[in-house]
Amino acid sequence: MSPENHLIQLSQDGPTAGPVDLIRLCLFDWAVCAIAGRDEPVSQLLAKFTDTQSALILGTMGHALDYDDTHFDHIGHTSAVVMPAVLAVAEAQKITDMTRIVEAALIGSEAAVRTGLWLGRDHYQIGFHQTATSGAIGAALGCAHLLNLTPTQIQNAIGLAATGASGLKGQFGTMGKPLNAGLAARCGAEVALWALAGITSDPAGLTQFGATHHGQANATAWDRTEPWKIARISHKFHACCHGLHAMLEALAGVTGEVSAMTIHTHPRWMTVCNQPAPMTGLGVKFSYAMTAAMALNGVSTAAISSFSDATANDTALITLRGKILVKPDNTLTEMQARVDVTYTNGSTQTLTHDLEAPLTLETRTKRLKQKARAVVGADLSDQLWTAVQGGTLATLTALVNN
Amino acid sequence: MSPENHLIQLSQDGPTAGPVDLIRLCLFDWAVCAIAGRDEPVSQLLAKFTDTQSALILGTMGHALDYDDTHFDHIGHTSAVVMPAVLAVAEAQKITDMTRIVEAALIGSEAAVRTGLWLGRDHYQIGFHQTATSGAIGAALGCAHLLNLTPTQIQNAIGLAATGASGLKGQFGTMGKPLNAGLAARCGAEVALWALAGITSDPAGLTQFGATHHGQANATAWDRTEPWKIARISHKFHACCHGLHAMLEALAGVTGEVSAMTIHTHPRWMTVCNQPAPMTGLGVKFSYAMTAAMALNGVSTAAISSFSDATANDTALITLRGKILVKPDNTLTEMQARVDVTYTNGSTQTLTHDLEAPLTLETRTKRLKQKARAVVGADLSDQLWTAVQGGTLATLTALVNN
Repeated sequence: MSPENHLIQLSQDGPTAGPVDLIRLCLFDWAVCAIAGRDEPVSQLLAKFTDTQSALILGTMGHALDYDDTHFDHIGHTSAVVMPAVLAVAEAQKITDMTRIVEAALIGSEAAVRTGLWLGRDHYQIGFHQTATSGAIGAALGCAHLLNLTPTQIQNAIGLAATGASGLKGQFGTMGKPLNAGLAARCGAEVALWALAGITSDPAGLTQFGATHHGQANATAWDRTEPWKIARISHKFHACCHGLHAMLEALAGVTGEVSAMTIHTHPRWMTVCNQPAPMTGLGVKFSYAMTAAMALNGVSTAAISSFSDATANDTALITLRGKILVKPDNTLTEMQARVDVTYTNGSTQTLTHDLEAPLTLETRTKRLKQKARAVVGADLSDQLWTAVQGGTLATLTALVNN
Repeated sequence: MSPENHLIQLSQDGPTAGPVDLIRLCLFDWAVCAIAGRDEPVSQLLAKFTDTQSALILGTMGHALDYDDTHFDHIGHTSAVVMPAVLAVAEAQKITDMTRIVEAALIGSEAAVRTGLWLGRDHYQIGFHQTATSGAIGAALGCAHLLNLTPTQIQNAIGLAATGASGLKGQFGTMGKPLNAGLAARCGAEVALWALAGITSDPAGLTQFGATHHGQANATAWDRTEPWKIARISHKFHACCHGLHAMLEALAGVTGEVSAMTIHTHPRWMTVCNQPAPMTGLGVKFSYAMTAAMALNGVSTAAISSFSDATANDTALITLRGKILVKPDNTLTEMQARVDVTYTNGSTQTLTHDLEAPLTLETRTKRLKQKARAVVGADLSDQLWTAVQGGTLATLTALVNN
């Protein structure tokens, strides 16, 4: 054991007799207390639950690629946390009715957004990961709904979620980011099951969570007359940087062979995703010219596998990207793009897209099925679609886990 | 499903088609993302670990009665979190050498206190439960030591602990309090195992944790030239309110039959634990007169079972407590008591005790063995003692779990 491995070092001579002997006493006394505490209700209730590990793993899996849905009101990924929590609780309680599961997911997702709005922007700015913090509380409420908890049990579930929720934004760019979603999913699932079993907590837990976690306590977040916040959930249709999405959507309107193209985008994106000549698949994810060339050449920008080193070095795409200019335009929002196209026949066209424009359910369904086919293949996509329409829980979880 | 059960209500007509259909789409898309994320390293690494549930349960058990040790520097219960974390990791990695386990527990306990000192009093005052927050980080470092992690792995473990640590003080008085210890123990154990497996995190995680969690960043907390902070760990020898302990220790000096007694204590305690005539065992835990009478009559104040309704209604004790006065004295600290005793032979004696006076290892050992016998019986106490002196991990965990 080399001393440089340890933040708190032992003395150079190794641990002295004093502290080690003392800790041995602490271990002895701790064991006595643990044995004495074994029959306490909280210990007995906890010992029954071992089956929320799936929420941790599914929560992490669903956010591992950052390709899942986002809600920009509070800035969080709701499904990444709520879905695995609800599925884990359904599995634990043998609730197989997909209608009930979907309804619980709706309540959980709406509650996550509203909790995030109640916490407000300070909470996010100081460094908390809304996906995880408001996600855990939303997930707890979704699971509470699934379990049909009593008001007192719901209070206990919220209090336990408040004391168990965590997640820092500094984890972005590390495995800690998807793990935050997994931890939040497990938290939401566990606390609902614990509350059902009779575990108690501070009824003012959420209020204290707000006070400790830089919340703004925006009371309007709970306004019941407001329309469903979840209606503005945003899905990702392209497996690349968000700054490229409006442009890629606009390019769906291209009608012929392009001879020249100018992409106009918000100035902020120019330093984020305007790599002119990326050398790797990862680089392509941050390149207007390359992703535009892919779209023009019929390469799926929805498929994760498209963003390969081979794509970065594809000569046809490299030739095509030479015809594309990218220009900042501060009259556009960050969610908008405008593309001026000149076709080989000499005609011109201006295409625009605004990511904030509402999608009809029909269009959203069509696009998500296209994405699913690009990501997991047509067969699995069809099976998933059938499962979520009204299949059994077992079918869905088997598809996801296997 | 009655609508009053739910914080976020569905509309009176039940959920409209829009949001439910939308959430079904979200579930479909989430499943696609989860399947696509299944092969990501973080998902694969996580799926291997399912064995830290024992840390959650043992962590909760050990703090369920609040009879475990306390460190007053940062105000936290260190063993409640560190011991179960280290034992769970040892079990998961089949590390059976008790010398290594005890050394890891020492590092973890010291790190918990120092993390708490680094966070400072603001963190505690605003509402965080130091036992759980600094405990999780200390436990992670103890487990990191046990696993002999590399410096990079230690950084990852700390970062993961920072994003996973939680716990609110508002849970005091509910099952949420011991559960906070359990959650922290599981967090510490998990993050060390995850870091060993290669899960990455924000290397500045602890710094961000301090910034988000009202930390004072007291750099002196990390001073390596300081003596072991853990040397001032405080054990509980009486199964009742802390305000009674100095008085009960002073009464060990009583030498004969008492005819009258006046207990002097810090004024703060007069409103906390001076129930003159409690009717229940719980009330006895907050009564100077009754616990003093118990001590004078040879009833163990270390045994949890002594604090029963029968004790509250014991006529001999009720007679004896009539001879006892309790008075506030603001020249005493909260940790001190003074007792003026008059014996039946007319002689008088003044007994004092200061809980902050250091205990020799010998005295502490003797007292903890007495406590253990009172709480779990002589046989189990002896077996535990042998196990922590150098027995195997299996022996210890079998004794605690069975």
